Amino acid sequence: MATPYFSKRNLQFLLHEVFRAEELTQYEYFSAHDRETFNLALDSATSIADTLMHPYLKEIDKNQPELRNGQVTVHPKVRDYLKAMGDAGLIGAGFSFEHGGQQLPELISSSIGFILMAANNGMMYTGLTSGAAHLITSFGSPELQAAYVPNMLAGTWQGTMALTEPQAGSSLSDVSTTAYPQPDGSYKIKGQKVFISAGDHDATDNIIHLMLARIEGAPRGTKGISLFVVPKYRLDGTDNDVTSTGIYHKMGQHGVPAMHLTMGERDDCIGYLVGEPHHGLPYMFQMMNEARIGVGMTAAAIATAAYHAALQYARERPQSRRLNEKSQLDSPQTPIINHPDVRRMLLFQKAVTEGSLSLLLEAARLYDISQVAEGDEKENAFLLLDLLMPMAKSYPSEMGVQSVSQSVQTFGGYGYTEDFPVEQLYRDIRITPIYEGTTGIQAQDLLGRKMTMKGGKAPQLLFAEISKTIAEAGTFDDLKPYADQLTAELKRTQDVMMALMPHAQQGNIERYLSDATLFLDLMGIVVVAWQWLKQAVVAKQALLTQNPQGDELAFYEGKIHTMKFFFHYEVPKTLGLAVRLKDTEVLTIVSEKELAL
Amino acid sequence: MATPYFSKRNLQFLLHEVFRAEELTQYEYFSAHDRETFNLALDSATSIADTLMHPYLKEIDKNQPELRNGQVTVHPKVRDYLKAMGDAGLIGAGFSFEHGGQQLPELISSSIGFILMAANNGMMYTGLTSGAAHLITSFGSPELQAAYVPNMLAGTWQGTMALTEPQAGSSLSDVSTTAYPQPDGSYKIKGQKVFISAGDHDATDNIIHLMLARIEGAPRGTKGISLFVVPKYRLDGTDNDVTSTGIYHKMGQHGVPAMHLTMGERDDCIGYLVGEPHHGLPYMFQMMNEARIGVGMTAAAIATAAYHAALQYARERPQSRRLNEKSQLDSPQTPIINHPDVRRMLLFQKAVTEGSLSLLLEAARLYDISQVAEGDEKENAFLLLDLLMPMAKSYPSEMGVQSVSQSVQTFGGYGYTEDFPVEQLYRDIRITPIYEGTTGIQAQDLLGRKMTMKGGKAPQLLFAEISKTIAEAGTFDDLKPYADQLTAELKRTQDVMMALMPHAQQGNIERYLSDATLFLDLMGIVVVAWQWLKQAVVAKQALLTQNPQGDELAFYEGKIHTMKFFFHYEVPKTLGLAVRLKDTEVLTIVSEKELAL
Repeated sequence: MATPYFSKRNLQFLLHEVFRAEELTQYEYFSAHDRETFNLALDSATSIADTLMHPYLKEIDKNQPELRNGQVTVHPKVRDYLKAMGDAGLIGAGFSFEHGGQQLPELISSSIGFILMAANNGMMYTGLTSGAAHLITSFGSPELQAAYVPNMLAGTWQGTMALTEPQAGSSLSDVSTTAYPQPDGSYKIKGQKVFISAGDHDATDNIIHLMLARIEGAPRGTKGISLFVVPKYRLDGTDNDVTSTGIYHKMGQHGVPAMHLTMGERDDCIGYLVGEPHHGLPYMFQMMNEARIGVGMTAAAIATAAYHAALQYARERPQSRRLNEKSQLDSPQTPIINHPDVRRMLLFQKAVTEGSLSLLLEAARLYDISQVAEGDEKENAFLLLDLLMPMAKSYPSEMGVQSVSQSVQTFGGYGYTEDFPVEQLYRDIRITPIYEGTTGIQAQDLLGRKMTMKGGKAPQLLFAEISKTIAEAGTFDDLKPYADQLTAELKRTQDVMMALMPHAQQGNIERYLSDATLFLDLMGIVVVAWQWLKQAVVAKQALLTQNPQGDELAFYEGKIHTMKFFFHYEVPKTLGLAVRLKDTEVLTIVSEKELAL
Repeated sequence: MATPYFSKRNLQFLLHEVFRAEELTQYEYFSAHDRETFNLALDSATSIADTLMHPYLKEIDKNQPELRNGQVTVHPKVRDYLKAMGDAGLIGAGFSFEHGGQQLPELISSSIGFILMAANNGMMYTGLTSGAAHLITSFGSPELQAAYVPNMLAGTWQGTMALTEPQAGSSLSDVSTTAYPQPDGSYKIKGQKVFISAGDHDATDNIIHLMLARIEGAPRGTKGISLFVVPKYRLDGTDNDVTSTGIYHKMGQHGVPAMHLTMGERDDCIGYLVGEPHHGLPYMFQMMNEARIGVGMTAAAIATAAYHAALQYARERPQSRRLNEKSQLDSPQTPIINHPDVRRMLLFQKAVTEGSLSLLLEAARLYDISQVAEGDEKENAFLLLDLLMPMAKSYPSEMGVQSVSQSVQTFGGYGYTEDFPVEQLYRDIRITPIYEGTTGIQAQDLLGRKMTMKGGKAPQLLFAEISKTIAEAGTFDDLKPYADQLTAELKRTQDVMMALMPHAQQGNIERYLSDATLFLDLMGIVVVAWQWLKQAVVAKQALLTQNPQGDELAFYEGKIHTMKFFFHYEVPKTLGLAVRLKDTEVLTIVSEKELAL
């Protein structure tokens, strides 16, 4: 039997029982869909994942892309995969019918991403293309849309997000790639970009970079950055002077080349402005939530695949005897899943991965509502989404790293070898706390912006949503203690904010944000606890009303058990975090004395 | 400038100021030494590390050993390194003069291991040889000693520890390799061993396996396991029928081959009994503390090298502006060390790595006293060492993994690439929580054996030792709050033990040990907090009595600052751990209902 890499039952549970995907079809925009069309799209993705991705997990890891004579060669299966994705309409799953898409909710298209990345995250190509094409459909002229989007959604052209430069990583205000206006309305581009994923390869016929650059003479900082379409080949087929000057050799995600690109070596690189001048960064940021859901999903997917591999191994691998039966040497060894410590490691992985997926689907559903609803409903969904994003990006990636580490540990020595997939997944997932905004950047975004924007309305909305779940859970005797515990966690979070706010009010932003990452950790635990309580309520209702048997009974009981595990093992970590966050001793802000590292 | 990989100043501080290495020379056994001979040995190791190890860090990672036609080829520099180590007398650093060693304390020889492994942990050969040779000198006949030890200490023969079998990893009682008595007193060996580090290679002229096997007809379980010397080539040069039937491809530590060995394929593998029959496991366990100090040192060394790389990068890499000066776009970007979040990550790495090294040197010093002292002093040192070992092995490895992860994070995207050493170190260190007893095994050893042996005398001794440090720290006004905090942590630990003990008393070992790993985490934080307070006391005394200036002033102030960081950021983690450990809800012990993972 092949190693399972995700649980279809769990995804169905989250989509249809917890997040009631079909309710989205009540909105006009999604009205062509129903539960069946949602599941058809998921099945189509699963089929591609099963046949064109998962079988090549190791092979693609082993055969890294290389840059030779200016050409980047990737595994031949990447082209097959991209064609299949285009043919199945899955690159455009979330695009409108008007733009040749399937007009599916983000709830479904991000679930598709989850399946694909669980199967083989080394084939992380199509999310980049979708993100780039979405920038064009959202902000580009009809001409740009017509010229570039169809081939991108067909999988024959690759899209990229070209933001980072050698001196401008987390600090995008320091982007220096320059665009020189030409008489015909186009621009000549000169500069360098680094870490451009899928920035050059031979599995598509063209590469379309969505690139940030500064129009000559533009203001300094983020207000002078514009967005351009910069293709590898122009529409007439001529070379556009985008040179692959380097390829990064990475610890993991070996299937996708990360490129160093130089534009304008021959002073002949043409770019086409997307939207208005100097609006590049706001445009990018309007796409950021989608992109960050994508990164979170990739992390959750990698950790999920590792968990299922570890679970299968733990069920099959005999080692030692039960702790109360140590002396019974004549009895056979027991599968390691029967050891409490192994079970603890597995429950940790299940709690982290299924909690992460739930949080990300919550974010995706809010994204959908923020797109298609109106008035207060739209605005509130948008605010809530904005607030949740730092956790939805960082919790799955930071805790996913720890989860895969526990998958490795479950295998013991074998987990460290290439005989099993977990060592690769351990390498692969380590990038996720870095790209699309490091954890430190997410933490500053959360505490420095999201918690305080619009007079703190977003956290008010979040606490109200969490309180709804708490109220529902409180109606079940055996869930009530956990509902109460979550109420106490909300109180704890508020106390922490009360302790921190004076620094912000006094304008000492450095002090206010000095432990922002710990605040992000705290909030991550709180919102994932909320997701677990939400899942437990649905499972409890199913147990009471559906009289499930066999696997179904086990599934729902497993949900409630894992919720308990999360509350008993993970939630208490907030105690230490809150103590530190309320602590008045400053240890990380620069002073001469503290420079003695 | 080459990247520094450890701090000589810190090692000197710990050895001479904190642990007062020279006091060991008051014992007859070490009386030939003084501070100068200790430092000469360290300098000799540093010279080898600088010239023969560190320059080949990446090259050795890139060129993994391969098994071809039964031959294992390793990087040619390994032979040079082993010869240099033998010539310098460093493989035998800890051996008695009688056995051709330097009779140096473990305090010094484990520091040598630290330096070597910080330089290039992919060249982890000599510790294995020392460990194997030490088994022979401790328990083997004079004939075995004469035949094998000199070439091993010279670096011309490799030693291995051959314990693990496919079905016997953590469960050594299931070892099934069999030894058949021969008329001449030797044994014929048949069986398989897996994951044998340095188990075959071409950098030495012979490989000497110290192998566990069961003499035909021996009792089941751990009481029927014997220890054998099983060479690759016999003393007359003939092949001894030990076949390399596989080589593991690992995530890291690429320089050292991990072998699958088959003994007796031609029924012609000879082994020589070490010591008494059926005493193999006790012999191994008498060497275990040394071996586990070695693994802890390897972990601390890898994390130290990663920390120094991250520190150097953070001082040199400009990115963004100070948080209170964000809008000053005309000012140059600031080195990232000036961002509180980066500083937090660096202080975390410093706190973990220097705390780990301190704990390991504490263990090494106790090892020395347990070897050379007499009466109560000897016994107490042995008990304390035994108790500390699970933390001294696990804290540096588990927290070292997290520390290197923060080193990667400090580099951002660059940390994920092969342009810098941290991605390799991240892969390398991940094995350390697995070998020489996984973290789960260490936890069972701590709570199931060490905390309760001899009526709980070991924790009493530990708490008395910690209380001495608390009393010293309490005499300084600015250290007193931390002394008080550590007192509270001792109380917390005792409360946890009180809550757990009834399960042990009722004989429900499975319940007693169900969260043993969390108890290990708790104790790890407590003993490292102790080490930091100890260092702070010494630093404080130096500041008050020596009037240090410049770098020296910064060094001592940095020690006190990092102690504070540990107490403010790491120690509060015990709150959540203690809550869970005292919690009565059992979630990891097997029941049908809980099998729904």
